[in-house]
Amino acid sequence: MDQPEKIEKIDIPSKAVYRLSIYHRCLQKLEANGVDTVSSSTLARAAGVKSAQLRKDLAYFGQFGTRGLGYPVELLSSTIRETLRREHLQPVILVGAGNLGSALLRYHGFEKEGFEVLAAFDSNPEGARARGVQIPVFPDNDLEKFIAEKNVKLAILCVPVEFAQSVVNRLVAAGILGVLNFSPVVLDVNPDVTVNNVDLALELEHLSYFVR
Amino acid sequence: MDQPEKIEKIDIPSKAVYRLSIYHRCLQKLEANGVDTVSSSTLARAAGVKSAQLRKDLAYFGQFGTRGLGYPVELLSSTIRETLRREHLQPVILVGAGNLGSALLRYHGFEKEGFEVLAAFDSNPEGARARGVQIPVFPDNDLEKFIAEKNVKLAILCVPVEFAQSVVNRLVAAGILGVLNFSPVVLDVNPDVTVNNVDLALELEHLSYFVR
Repeated sequence: MDQPEKIEKIDIPSKAVYRLSIYHRCLQKLEANGVDTVSSSTLARAAGVKSAQLRKDLAYFGQFGTRGLGYPVELLSSTIRETLRREHLQPVILVGAGNLGSALLRYHGFEKEGFEVLAAFDSNPEGARARGVQIPVFPDNDLEKFIAEKNVKLAILCVPVEFAQSVVNRLVAAGILGVLNFSPVVLDVNPDVTVNNVDLALELEHLSYFVR
Repeated sequence: MDQPEKIEKIDIPSKAVYRLSIYHRCLQKLEANGVDTVSSSTLARAAGVKSAQLRKDLAYFGQFGTRGLGYPVELLSSTIRETLRREHLQPVILVGAGNLGSALLRYHGFEKEGFEVLAAFDSNPEGARARGVQIPVFPDNDLEKFIAEKNVKLAILCVPVEFAQSVVNRLVAAGILGVLNFSPVVLDVNPDVTVNNVDLALELEHLSYFVR
Protein backbone atom coordinates (compact mmCIF):
# COMPACT_ATOMS: atom_id res chain seq x y z
CA MET A 1 0.00 0.00 0.00
CA ASP A 2 1.27 3.45 -0.86
CA GLN A 3 1.69 6.26 1.65
CA PRO A 4 -1.39 8.50 1.31
CA GLU A 5 -0.59 11.80 -0.37
CA LYS A 6 -1.45 15.44 0.28
CA ILE A 7 -1.99 14.93 3.98
CA GLU A 8 -1.27 18.59 4.65
CA LYS A 9 -4.29 19.69 2.68
CA ILE A 10 -6.95 17.53 4.34
CA ASP A 11 -9.64 19.58 6.02
CA ILE A 12 -10.68 17.61 9.09
CA PRO A 13 -13.57 18.67 11.37
CA SER A 14 -12.74 19.76 14.88
CA LYS A 15 -14.24 16.77 16.69
CA ALA A 16 -12.53 14.31 14.36
CA VAL A 17 -9.16 15.84 15.23
CA TYR A 18 -9.70 14.91 18.89
CA ARG A 19 -10.47 11.35 17.86
CA LEU A 20 -7.39 11.17 15.62
CA SER A 21 -5.25 12.08 18.64
CA ILE A 22 -6.83 9.23 20.57
CA TYR A 23 -6.38 6.76 17.70
CA HIS A 24 -2.76 7.84 17.51
CA ARG A 25 -2.18 7.06 21.18
CA CYS A 26 -3.78 3.63 20.81
CA LEU A 27 -1.64 2.93 17.73
CA GLN A 28 1.52 3.96 19.57
CA LYS A 29 0.72 1.42 22.29
CA LEU A 30 0.16 -1.26 19.65
CA GLU A 31 3.47 -0.33 17.97
CA ALA A 32 5.26 -0.53 21.31
CA ASN A 33 3.81 -4.02 21.75
CA GLY A 34 5.04 -5.09 18.31
CA VAL A 35 1.57 -5.38 16.75
CA ASP A 36 1.63 -5.05 12.93
CA THR A 37 -2.05 -4.78 12.01
CA VAL A 38 -5.22 -3.96 13.92
CA SER A 39 -8.87 -4.49 13.01
CA SER A 40 -11.20 -1.51 12.98
CA SER A 41 -13.30 -3.06 15.75
CA THR A 42 -10.29 -3.54 18.05
CA LEU A 43 -8.96 -0.04 17.45
CA ALA A 44 -12.44 1.44 17.84
CA ARG A 45 -12.95 -0.33 21.17
CA ALA A 46 -9.57 0.85 22.48
CA ALA A 47 -10.44 4.42 21.50
CA GLY A 48 -13.95 4.26 22.94
CA VAL A 49 -15.75 4.94 19.63
CA LYS A 50 -18.00 2.93 17.33
CA SER A 51 -16.36 1.06 14.43
CA ALA A 52 -18.37 3.04 11.90
CA GLN A 53 -17.06 6.27 13.41
CA LEU A 54 -13.47 5.05 13.21
CA ARG A 55 -13.83 4.00 9.58
CA LYS A 56 -15.39 7.35 8.71
CA ASP A 57 -12.59 9.26 10.45
CA LEU A 58 -9.85 7.27 8.76
CA ALA A 59 -11.49 7.80 5.38
CA TYR A 60 -10.09 11.36 5.50
CA PHE A 61 -6.80 9.76 4.52
CA GLY A 62 -8.28 8.03 1.52
CA GLN A 63 -8.23 4.27 1.14
CA PHE A 64 -6.66 2.79 4.25
CA GLY A 65 -6.65 -0.73 5.55
CA THR A 66 -7.33 -3.98 3.71
CA ARG A 67 -10.62 -5.76 4.16
CA GLY A 68 -10.08 -8.78 6.39
CA LEU A 69 -6.52 -7.76 7.31
CA GLY A 70 -7.14 -4.55 9.22
CA TYR A 71 -5.07 -1.39 9.38
CA PRO A 72 -1.27 -1.34 9.16
CA VAL A 73 -0.34 -0.01 12.62
CA GLU A 74 2.93 1.73 11.85
CA LEU A 75 1.80 3.42 8.64
CA LEU A 76 -1.49 4.58 10.11
CA SER A 77 0.28 5.89 13.19
CA SER A 78 2.84 7.87 11.18
CA THR A 79 0.14 9.23 8.86
CA ILE A 80 -1.91 10.54 11.77
CA ARG A 81 1.21 11.88 13.47
CA GLU A 82 2.13 13.83 10.37
CA THR A 83 -1.41 15.15 10.00
CA LEU A 84 -1.43 16.32 13.62
CA ARG A 85 2.03 17.86 13.13
CA ARG A 86 3.40 15.82 15.99
CA GLU A 87 6.79 15.56 14.25
CA HIS A 88 7.90 18.97 15.46
CA LEU A 89 8.13 20.41 18.95
CA GLN A 90 5.48 23.14 19.20
CA PRO A 91 6.41 26.29 21.13
CA VAL A 92 3.84 27.46 23.67
CA ILE A 93 3.68 30.27 26.21
CA LEU A 94 1.71 30.33 29.44
CA VAL A 95 0.08 33.53 30.61
CA GLY A 96 -0.94 33.89 34.25
CA ALA A 97 1.37 31.93 36.52
CA GLY A 98 -0.83 32.05 39.62
CA ASN A 99 -1.95 28.95 41.50
CA LEU A 100 -3.29 27.01 38.54
CA GLY A 101 -0.73 28.27 36.01
CA SER A 102 2.18 27.43 38.31
CA ALA A 103 0.65 24.04 39.00
CA LEU A 104 0.44 23.28 35.28
CA LEU A 105 4.06 24.32 34.79
CA ARG A 106 5.27 22.07 37.60
CA TYR A 107 3.26 19.20 36.13
CA HIS A 108 5.47 18.93 32.98
CA GLY A 109 2.77 16.96 31.15
CA PHE A 110 2.87 19.11 28.02
CA GLU A 111 6.52 18.43 27.23
CA LYS A 112 5.87 14.70 27.11
CA GLU A 113 3.37 15.29 24.32
CA GLY A 114 5.64 17.40 22.14
CA PHE A 115 4.98 20.92 23.39
CA GLU A 116 7.74 23.19 24.65
CA VAL A 117 6.58 25.82 27.11
CA LEU A 118 9.11 28.55 26.30
CA ALA A 119 8.19 31.05 28.98
CA ALA A 120 5.50 32.20 31.37
CA PHE A 121 4.16 35.73 31.78
CA ASP A 122 2.67 37.22 34.90
CA SER A 123 2.03 40.63 36.40
CA ASN A 124 4.11 39.38 39.35
CA PRO A 125 6.98 37.28 37.97
CA GLU A 126 8.66 37.05 41.39
CA GLY A 127 5.54 35.41 42.85
CA ALA A 128 5.53 32.78 40.14
CA ARG A 129 9.22 32.03 40.66
CA ALA A 130 8.54 31.66 44.39
CA ARG A 131 5.91 29.02 43.50
CA GLY A 132 8.68 26.90 42.03
CA VAL A 133 8.21 27.61 38.33
CA GLN A 134 11.40 26.55 36.57
CA ILE A 135 11.01 28.15 33.14
CA PRO A 136 11.63 31.90 32.59
CA VAL A 137 8.84 34.11 33.95
CA PHE A 138 8.58 37.57 32.41
CA PRO A 139 6.40 40.58 33.27
CA ASP A 140 3.29 40.56 31.12
CA ASN A 141 4.34 43.78 29.39
CA ASP A 142 6.87 41.70 27.46
CA LEU A 143 4.18 39.47 25.91
CA GLU A 144 3.89 41.09 22.50
CA LYS A 145 7.63 41.33 21.89
CA PHE A 146 8.23 37.71 22.88
CA ILE A 147 5.40 36.33 20.73
CA ALA A 148 6.68 38.21 17.69
CA GLU A 149 10.35 37.35 18.22
CA LYS A 150 9.79 33.64 18.87
CA ASN A 151 6.92 33.31 16.40
CA VAL A 152 4.74 31.59 19.01
CA LYS A 153 1.24 30.58 17.88
CA LEU A 154 -0.08 28.75 20.97
CA ALA A 155 -0.84 30.12 24.43
CA ILE A 156 -2.12 28.59 27.66
CA LEU A 157 -4.28 31.15 29.45
CA CYS A 158 -4.59 30.94 33.25
CA VAL A 159 -5.24 34.55 34.23
CA PRO A 160 -8.02 35.54 36.65
CA VAL A 161 -11.40 35.57 34.95
CA GLU A 162 -11.75 39.37 34.95
CA PHE A 163 -8.57 39.79 32.86
CA ALA A 164 -9.10 36.90 30.46
CA GLN A 165 -10.75 38.81 27.60
CA SER A 166 -8.33 41.73 27.62
CA VAL A 167 -5.32 39.40 27.76
CA VAL A 168 -6.65 37.24 24.92
CA ASN A 169 -7.17 40.38 22.83
CA ARG A 170 -3.48 41.22 23.31
CA LEU A 171 -2.39 37.66 22.52
CA VAL A 172 -4.38 37.55 19.30
CA ALA A 173 -3.19 41.00 18.22
CA ALA A 174 0.38 39.79 18.77
CA GLY A 175 -0.08 36.72 16.57
CA ILE A 176 -1.42 33.90 18.78
CA LEU A 177 -3.80 31.61 16.83
CA GLY A 178 -4.64 28.94 19.41
CA VAL A 179 -5.56 29.43 23.07
CA LEU A 180 -5.99 26.77 25.73
CA ASN A 181 -8.20 28.69 28.13
CA PHE A 182 -8.42 27.71 31.80
CA SER A 183 -10.33 30.86 32.81
CA PRO A 184 -14.01 30.11 33.46
CA VAL A 185 -15.30 32.60 30.88
CA VAL A 186 -16.45 32.51 27.27
CA LEU A 187 -13.82 34.36 25.22
CA ASP A 188 -14.80 36.41 22.20
CA VAL A 189 -12.24 36.01 19.37
CA ASN A 190 -12.01 36.18 15.58
CA PRO A 191 -13.11 33.05 13.70
CA ASP A 192 -9.49 32.40 12.64
CA VAL A 193 -8.47 31.93 16.28
CA THR A 194 -9.23 28.61 18.02
CA VAL A 195 -10.04 28.62 21.72
CA ASN A 196 -10.30 25.35 23.62
CA ASN A 197 -11.71 25.66 27.11
CA VAL A 198 -10.66 23.50 30.03
CA ASP A 199 -12.98 24.27 32.88
CA LEU A 200 -12.30 21.99 35.82
CA ALA A 201 -15.10 23.21 38.06
CA LEU A 202 -17.57 22.95 35.17
CA GLU A 203 -16.59 19.31 34.65
CA LEU A 204 -17.12 18.51 38.33
CA GLU A 205 -20.44 20.35 38.38
CA HIS A 206 -21.52 18.39 35.33
CA LEU A 207 -20.58 15.10 37.01
CA SER A 208 -22.35 15.99 40.20
CA TYR A 209 -25.60 16.52 38.27
CA PHE A 210 -25.40 12.99 36.94
CA VAL A 211 -24.57 11.24 40.23
CA ARG A 212 -27.85 12.26 41.87
CA MET B 1 -44.54 34.15 37.93
CA ASP B 2 -44.55 30.99 40.01
CA GLN B 3 -41.45 29.08 40.92
CA PRO B 4 -41.22 26.13 38.49
CA GLU B 5 -42.08 22.86 40.16
CA LYS B 6 -40.58 19.37 40.15
CA ILE B 7 -37.12 20.58 39.25
CA GLU B 8 -35.59 17.44 40.71
CA LYS B 9 -37.30 15.27 38.13
CA ILE B 10 -36.20 17.07 34.98
CA ASP B 11 -34.12 14.89 32.70
CA ILE B 12 -31.61 17.19 31.05
CA PRO B 13 -29.21 16.02 28.32
CA SER B 14 -25.51 15.95 29.11
CA LYS B 15 -24.48 18.84 26.87
CA ALA B 16 -27.28 21.05 28.14
CA VAL B 17 -26.03 20.57 31.71
CA TYR B 18 -22.70 22.15 30.72
CA ARG B 19 -24.55 25.10 29.24
CA LEU B 20 -26.72 25.50 32.37
CA SER B 21 -23.54 25.82 34.44
CA ILE B 22 -22.35 28.57 32.13
CA TYR B 23 -25.71 30.38 32.21
CA HIS B 24 -25.59 30.17 35.99
CA ARG B 25 -22.19 31.85 36.11
CA CYS B 26 -23.39 34.64 33.83
CA LEU B 27 -26.51 35.11 35.96
CA GLN B 28 -24.42 35.28 39.13
CA LYS B 29 -22.40 38.12 37.61
CA LEU B 30 -25.61 39.93 36.65
CA GLU B 31 -26.98 39.45 40.18
CA ALA B 32 -23.75 40.81 41.64
CA ASN B 33 -24.17 43.86 39.41
CA GLY B 34 -27.73 44.41 40.61
CA VAL B 35 -29.39 43.51 37.29
CA ASP B 36 -33.03 42.36 37.68
CA THR B 37 -33.89 41.04 34.23
CA VAL B 38 -31.90 39.94 31.20
CA SER B 39 -32.95 39.39 27.61
CA SER B 40 -32.33 36.01 26.01
CA SER B 41 -30.02 37.61 23.43
CA THR B 42 -27.85 39.28 26.10
CA LEU B 43 -27.60 36.14 28.21
CA ALA B 44 -26.92 34.02 25.12
CA ARG B 45 -24.10 36.32 23.99
CA ALA B 46 -22.51 36.29 27.47
CA ALA B 47 -22.65 32.49 27.48
CA GLY B 48 -21.34 32.15 23.92
CA VAL B 49 -24.41 30.34 22.57
CA LYS B 50 -27.15 31.18 20.08
CA SER B 51 -30.38 32.69 21.45
CA ALA B 52 -32.41 29.79 20.12
CA GLN B 53 -30.16 27.37 22.03
CA LEU B 54 -30.60 29.31 25.25
CA ARG B 55 -34.38 29.42 24.91
CA LYS B 56 -34.46 25.70 24.21
CA ASP B 57 -32.27 24.94 27.24
CA LEU B 58 -34.35 27.08 29.58
CA ALA B 59 -37.54 25.44 28.32
CA TYR B 60 -36.56 22.42 30.48
CA PHE B 61 -37.84 24.49 33.39
CA GLY B 62 -41.20 25.10 31.74
CA GLN B 63 -42.43 28.61 31.01
CA PHE B 64 -39.74 31.06 32.02
CA GLY B 65 -39.33 34.70 31.14
CA THR B 66 -41.91 37.16 29.91
CA ARG B 67 -41.93 38.17 26.27
CA GLY B 68 -40.47 41.66 25.97
CA LEU B 69 -39.27 41.75 29.57
CA GLY B 70 -36.66 39.01 29.55
CA TYR B 71 -35.73 36.55 32.24
CA PRO B 72 -35.85 37.32 35.97
CA VAL B 73 -32.17 37.07 36.93
CA GLU B 74 -32.47 36.00 40.55
CA LEU B 75 -35.21 33.42 40.05
CA LEU B 76 -33.55 31.88 37.00
CA SER B 77 -30.22 31.74 38.81
CA SER B 78 -31.67 30.02 41.88
CA THR B 79 -33.64 27.58 39.72
CA ILE B 80 -30.54 26.51 37.81
CA ARG B 81 -28.53 26.37 41.02
CA GLU B 82 -31.08 24.02 42.58
CA THR B 83 -31.18 21.87 39.45
CA LEU B 84 -27.40 21.56 39.44
CA ARG B 85 -27.46 20.82 43.17
CA ARG B 86 -25.11 23.69 43.84
CA GLU B 87 -26.80 24.34 47.19
CA HIS B 88 -24.83 21.63 48.94
CA LEU B 89 -21.10 21.10 49.27
CA GLN B 90 -20.25 17.95 47.29
CA PRO B 91 -17.63 15.62 48.77
CA VAL B 92 -14.92 14.47 46.36
CA ILE B 93 -11.80 12.35 46.67
CA LEU B 94 -8.67 12.57 44.54
CA VAL B 95 -6.81 9.41 43.59
CA GLY B 96 -3.19 9.65 42.44
CA ALA B 97 -1.41 12.56 44.10
CA GLY B 98 1.60 12.62 41.78
CA ASN B 99 2.68 15.72 39.87
CA LEU B 100 -0.68 16.59 38.35
CA GLY B 101 -2.80 15.44 41.29
CA SER B 102 -0.72 17.41 43.77
CA ALA B 103 -0.85 20.43 41.48
CA LEU B 104 -4.66 20.25 41.35
CA LEU B 105 -4.84 20.01 45.13
CA ARG B 106 -2.62 23.04 45.61
CA TYR B 107 -4.75 24.96 43.12
CA HIS B 108 -7.84 25.04 45.40
CA GLY B 109 -10.11 25.86 42.46
CA PHE B 110 -12.66 23.15 43.25
CA GLU B 111 -13.54 24.46 46.71
CA LYS B 112 -14.54 27.81 45.25
CA GLU B 113 -17.15 26.04 43.14
CA GLY B 114 -18.73 24.08 45.96
CA PHE B 115 -16.71 20.87 46.03
CA GLU B 116 -14.91 19.65 49.12
CA VAL B 117 -11.91 17.44 48.43
CA LEU B 118 -12.04 15.25 51.55
CA ALA B 119 -8.85 13.28 51.03
CA ALA B 120 -6.30 12.10 48.50
CA PHE B 121 -5.09 8.54 47.97
CA ASP B 122 -1.73 7.48 46.64
CA SER B 123 0.52 4.44 46.68
CA ASN B 124 3.11 6.76 48.21
CA PRO B 125 1.33 9.13 50.64
CA GLU B 126 4.62 10.49 51.97
CA GLY B 127 5.62 11.65 48.51
CA ALA B 128 2.36 13.54 48.08
CA ARG B 129 2.76 15.22 51.45
CA ALA B 130 6.28 16.23 50.47
CA ARG B 131 4.77 17.92 47.39
CA GLY B 132 2.87 20.24 49.72
CA VAL B 133 -0.57 18.61 49.67
CA GLN B 134 -2.47 19.99 52.67
CA ILE B 135 -5.45 17.61 52.86
CA PRO B 136 -5.09 14.09 54.33
CA VAL B 137 -3.30 11.65 52.02
CA PHE B 138 -4.00 7.97 52.63
CA PRO B 139 -2.49 4.81 51.14
CA ASP B 140 -4.63 3.62 48.25
CA ASN B 141 -5.53 0.43 50.09
CA ASP B 142 -7.86 2.55 52.22
CA LEU B 143 -9.93 3.69 49.22
CA GLU B 144 -12.86 1.31 49.52
CA LYS B 145 -13.35 1.82 53.25
CA PHE B 146 -13.23 5.61 52.95
CA ILE B 147 -15.69 5.79 50.04
CA ALA B 148 -18.20 3.62 51.91
CA GLU B 149 -17.83 5.41 55.24
CA LYS B 150 -18.08 8.93 53.84
CA ASN B 151 -20.59 8.01 51.14
CA VAL B 152 -18.49 9.73 48.45
CA LYS B 153 -19.86 9.63 44.90
CA LEU B 154 -17.30 11.73 43.00
CA ALA B 155 -13.63 11.04 42.35
CA ILE B 156 -10.86 12.91 40.55
CA LEU B 157 -8.54 10.38 38.90
CA CYS B 158 -4.91 11.37 38.30
CA VAL B 159 -3.12 8.02 38.41
CA PRO B 160 -0.56 6.99 35.77
CA VAL B 161 -2.27 5.80 32.61
CA GLU B 162 -1.38 2.12 33.11
CA PHE B 163 -3.26 1.98 36.42
CA ALA B 164 -6.29 4.05 35.43
CA GLN B 165 -8.64 1.22 34.44
CA SER B 166 -7.89 -0.98 37.46
CA VAL B 167 -8.28 1.96 39.85
CA VAL B 168 -11.56 3.06 38.27
CA ASN B 169 -12.84 -0.51 38.61
CA ARG B 170 -12.14 -0.33 42.34
CA LEU B 171 -13.73 3.12 42.66
CA VAL B 172 -16.91 2.04 40.91
CA ALA B 173 -17.14 -1.19 42.92
CA ALA B 174 -16.86 0.90 46.09
CA GLY B 175 -19.73 3.22 45.09
CA ILE B 176 -18.24 6.06 43.01
CA LEU B 177 -20.70 7.24 40.31
CA GLY B 178 -18.82 10.15 38.71
CA VAL B 179 -15.16 10.28 37.70
CA LEU B 180 -13.21 13.30 36.50
CA ASN B 181 -10.45 11.50 34.62
CA PHE B 182 -7.12 13.20 33.94
CA SER B 183 -5.41 10.01 32.73
CA PRO B 184 -5.05 9.99 28.94
CA VAL B 185 -6.96 6.76 28.43
CA VAL B 186 -10.51 5.77 27.52
CA LEU B 187 -12.03 4.17 30.63
CA ASP B 188 -14.50 1.32 30.34
CA VAL B 189 -17.31 1.66 32.92
CA ASN B 190 -20.96 0.71 33.44
CA PRO B 191 -23.52 3.00 31.80
CA ASP B 192 -24.67 4.23 35.23
CA VAL B 193 -21.23 5.73 35.88
CA THR B 194 -20.33 9.07 34.29
CA VAL B 195 -16.72 9.70 33.25
CA ASN B 196 -15.65 13.17 32.15
CA ASN B 197 -12.21 13.31 30.61
CA VAL B 198 -9.86 16.25 30.96
CA ASP B 199 -6.94 15.62 28.67
CA LEU B 200 -4.61 18.60 28.62
CA ALA B 201 -2.18 17.30 26.02
CA LEU B 202 -5.09 16.32 23.76
CA GLU B 203 -6.43 19.89 23.92
CA LEU B 204 -3.05 21.34 22.98
CA GLU B 205 -2.62 18.83 20.16
CA HIS B 206 -6.06 19.75 18.88
CA LEU B 207 -5.19 23.46 18.94
CA SER B 208 -1.89 22.92 17.20
CA TYR B 209 -3.70 21.24 14.31
CA PHE B 210 -5.83 24.34 13.77
CA VAL B 211 -3.01 26.89 13.97
CA ARG B 212 -1.24 25.56 10.88
